[in-house]
Amino acid sequence: MKQNKSAKTETTRRAFISKSGLLLAGTVLASSSAAEVKAEAANFIPPFPAPQQDIAALRADLVTANHILYDQGVVDGYGHVSVRHPGNPNHFLISRWLAPDMVTESDILEVDFDCKPVGGEKARLYSEVFIHGEIYRARSDVKSIVHTHAPAVILMGISGETLMPMYQMTGYMGTGVPLFDIRQAVGMTNMLISDPVRAKALVQKLADKPAVLMRGHGGVVTGSSLAQAVGRSVYMRVNAELQVQVLGKKITYLAPEEAQLAGNNDYPKDWEMWKRKVTAQRG
Amino acid sequence: MKQNKSAKTETTRRAFISKSGLLLAGTVLASSSAAEVKAEAANFIPPFPAPQQDIAALRADLVTANHILYDQGVVDGYGHVSVRHPGNPNHFLISRWLAPDMVTESDILEVDFDCKPVGGEKARLYSEVFIHGEIYRARSDVKSIVHTHAPAVILMGISGETLMPMYQMTGYMGTGVPLFDIRQAVGMTNMLISDPVRAKALVQKLADKPAVLMRGHGGVVTGSSLAQAVGRSVYMRVNAELQVQVLGKKITYLAPEEAQLAGNNDYPKDWEMWKRKVTAQRG
Amino acid sequence: MKQNKSAKTETTRRAFISKSGLLLAGTVLASSSAAEVKAEAANFIPPFPAPQQDIAALRADLVTANHILYDQGVVDGYGHVSVRHPGNPNHFLISRWLAPDMVTESDILEVDFDCKPVGGEKARLYSEVFIHGEIYRARSDVKSIVHTHAPAVILMGISGETLMPMYQMTGYMGTGVPLFDIRQAVGMTNMLISDPVRAKALVQKLADKPAVLMRGHGGVVTGSSLAQAVGRSVYMRVNAELQVQVLGKKITYLAPEEAQLAGNNDYPKDWEMWKRKVTAQRG
Amino acid sequence: MKQNKSAKTETTRRAFISKSGLLLAGTVLASSSAAEVKAEAANFIPPFPAPQQDIAALRADLVTANHILYDQGVVDGYGHVSVRHPGNPNHFLISRWLAPDMVTESDILEVDFDCKPVGGEKARLYSEVFIHGEIYRARSDVKSIVHTHAPAVILMGISGETLMPMYQMTGYMGTGVPLFDIRQAVGMTNMLISDPVRAKALVQKLADKPAVLMRGHGGVVTGSSLAQAVGRSVYMRVNAELQVQVLGKKITYLAPEEAQLAGNNDYPKDWEMWKRKVTAQRG
Repeated sequence: MKQNKSAKTETTRRAFISKSGLLLAGTVLASSSAAEVKAEAANFIPPFPAPQQDIAALRADLVTANHILYDQGVVDGYGHVSVRHPGNPNHFLISRWLAPDMVTESDILEVDFDCKPVGGEKARLYSEVFIHGEIYRARSDVKSIVHTHAPAVILMGISGETLMPMYQMTGYMGTGVPLFDIRQAVGMTNMLISDPVRAKALVQKLADKPAVLMRGHGGVVTGSSLAQAVGRSVYMRVNAELQVQVLGKKITYLAPEEAQLAGNNDYPKDWEMWKRKVTAQRG
Repeated sequence: MKQNKSAKTETTRRAFISKSGLLLAGTVLASSSAAEVKAEAANFIPPFPAPQQDIAALRADLVTANHILYDQGVVDGYGHVSVRHPGNPNHFLISRWLAPDMVTESDILEVDFDCKPVGGEKARLYSEVFIHGEIYRARSDVKSIVHTHAPAVILMGISGETLMPMYQMTGYMGTGVPLFDIRQAVGMTNMLISDPVRAKALVQKLADKPAVLMRGHGGVVTGSSLAQAVGRSVYMRVNAELQVQVLGKKITYLAPEEAQLAGNNDYPKDWEMWKRKVTAQRG
Repeated sequence: MKQNKSAKTETTRRAFISKSGLLLAGTVLASSSAAEVKAEAANFIPPFPAPQQDIAALRADLVTANHILYDQGVVDGYGHVSVRHPGNPNHFLISRWLAPDMVTESDILEVDFDCKPVGGEKARLYSEVFIHGEIYRARSDVKSIVHTHAPAVILMGISGETLMPMYQMTGYMGTGVPLFDIRQAVGMTNMLISDPVRAKALVQKLADKPAVLMRGHGGVVTGSSLAQAVGRSVYMRVNAELQVQVLGKKITYLAPEEAQLAGNNDYPKDWEMWKRKVTAQRG
Repeated sequence: MKQNKSAKTETTRRAFISKSGLLLAGTVLASSSAAEVKAEAANFIPPFPAPQQDIAALRADLVTANHILYDQGVVDGYGHVSVRHPGNPNHFLISRWLAPDMVTESDILEVDFDCKPVGGEKARLYSEVFIHGEIYRARSDVKSIVHTHAPAVILMGISGETLMPMYQMTGYMGTGVPLFDIRQAVGMTNMLISDPVRAKALVQKLADKPAVLMRGHGGVVTGSSLAQAVGRSVYMRVNAELQVQVLGKKITYLAPEEAQLAGNNDYPKDWEMWKRKVTAQRG
């Protein structure tokens, strides 16, 4: 909800906030001078995760982001979220192979662009971790990435129509979200971005946009901060849920060969997640 | 659920209820004389927030209204609700800049029509607080205002079709809810009613109606009481969710320039709200 | 899930169940003789509310039914459920004027067909209690009645299409649910069945069917037991939610005069219900 | 999310996992040699129910599966899930006649292909238990079966269109899920697979596919493990919820005779389930 403000005020405010340990970029003050901003700030609930200098806090925020994305219907047993390492821009933080709702702080790994855990740590990674590595490599402006599995986003990606911004919360979509069709890029597959070649093809379609849909699979949303990537992916879900209400009927289903390649799925991350939920319900 | 009743009975009942501190306007008694009404009233659960004479109770009710609007899907991290001050009709009560679900009593401010906090209090306000100030200024009959972000209401506002009353719970919509298109009023913007000029243009479209939609943004619902404004906005959401099921497909998306102006959003209020929710889930 | 069984077995089973205090009509045994049924019965969780001879248990079940109907999305702040008095078929039990989710045992009233509380009790009744009185008067086979406000049922009732059974859970709908249009019956109104004349017109449209929709309002579902009326209304909601996905677009909205007559609504029952919910969420 | 890997690696990994008591077939390692796999495995959360050698654990998993299927919207008061007995492939485990959400470990029965409880135990079975017996008899590859009642799956089954895989999570659907119309197979019925003749007709339509829809009723999903059958049925629900958004309007409703035969339903399993839920909500 950013307003048009003088660059000077914006700069002043950012500088102040930076000192107080808060990052409030892109927020709005109803009627404010720089002095008022300072007076006000003490009352603010910090709208952002802790500053990126504090790695421990950022890891905690990344765990929270995993839980939010599940709670808000952006991911199910699959999908993932990462954040670029503030101290080393060639590294990023991401959970090991786990359903997002199951992630805890000890599951967060530091990974390089080749998707090797730093320090030789032995841990299973998401098969699609290359999405993150290749986008961070190609796009220095990107600080955080969400791989969304929101059902309505998936439907948009096979609808033959472009996901378009319907209201101010999704203005970042601009003239529409580009669509990556893995079949056009690398032929018949199991639909997964499970190697660097596929990831580079996805990056090419993303280009300089903030997000890209993946036909028959989901989408990727980037942001200049963890909170922005999370927020954009939540409101992309809402926007897609509205747009699918007015869709035509020209759907692209999986090709038989794609279905065959993707078909041997045992849904391994779901079981434990679903089990924890029903177990918790019974106290 | 108001019935046609003789004006006399209605008056008697209202007088009685007023004395007992309850405001039951617009409710129905299945078969009643004024005497029966009095006998009955002791058993009533008061259907309304406490009488407006009691400012402390009204503040508490306003906090509750914030929570209800989130729980009922009328607002998300955004949207807001206000109530006219019963002791000073030129003032109104509204939360400072916070996601509605996060509001507590200490966050409620008293604000004048120019949207300055009374007593020179320094607090950040909603950037769109002018919606409230200008409507209260122009419409003495309005006692409470909700700014809705319900997704289905947003879809109705870009559908090229008029939000129409489908059942008795939304009879207040009359011949249909008017639509405010900020582009027609003030050109390309970030879609927000963030100054008095935009707010006055919105008031002009609202005219003497109880509600108005805002293209690409949401809507505004007014009421003769806090409970009525809340109730109308909840049932507007339900009605819109039904009507979008039978929409045509002529949608107005954000213009590229609007998208650009609205696009730099960091979703600052959402993060803390979403975080509290997932944290609470884990006890 | 009734199977074709010999009348004899059915009779035997019912007789047995009756003795043991359970009413299991309409259930199925996968492979059973009467002897097996008896052996089995001790392990059964009684699928039905307590036998109707026990008024205290029936009142408790009626309270539970109120809560279930809210939880299952059949009613909101409005709608109601009643059960015919087992000891006096000219009376029925129903809550006083309260949102179904708020009902407790002390709120249950015994009412006659003229909708007067038995024993001259002074309590506010639902303005539409006449729905219940007139149906019980006309239809001795009806033991329980639900007035549904499920949104999808409302949409079906204004769609110009007939609510049809889509699967075995709604087989009771037969060749389709009849539609009552209050405008055709008694002209322009506030849409409510708030007097015996309107209720009798509704009964005429119901005829010998198990259910009837009410244009611009909701519907009524009857059953041979409390559990059946509740179950039918829940699955009517599910069925309607499916059928609205394949609707055409010829909707009948409220007429302006209907909207005006129904428009002065303060949603009195909702506020307390919504408030309790958000208050409970905060512990 | 299986990748194309050399048969050798796959075998090695399976062998290792088998030794450690885990069954991880069909999962993916982002970049792995057999050696790395072993190092990693100690950190894994086992994505699968306990190994089938342990009957007590398998019964517990079957209870959990019942609860998950309700929580995930695959079943309501009806529907069921079974698993083939690992020690005796001619037997299977399934709950006695209970709503899935109500099942506890003492409700799990061991049953043969004729749907007789082993050891002559007297317990009421699901009237449609024959679905399970006949599929296990005909399909030695099937280790687990879910009978789904997901509403969107029901709508697909009467839509005249084929349920198709829309994304990689439902690749198992291949060229589309076959449809069983009980009317074509055995004429007018109450729609239930309540005897072996009907079950054999269903098996014929299933053929060698992983799943089959049942017109006007629901569907059946099979798997090579309990987790796979559960996962497939959850993602079938998601996929169907997307596909019904783009349906045409050629619906097959119940025939009047079917409706009549299915219409005498008292919803016996629902009441206790719904009651427990609303009771728990009130603490």
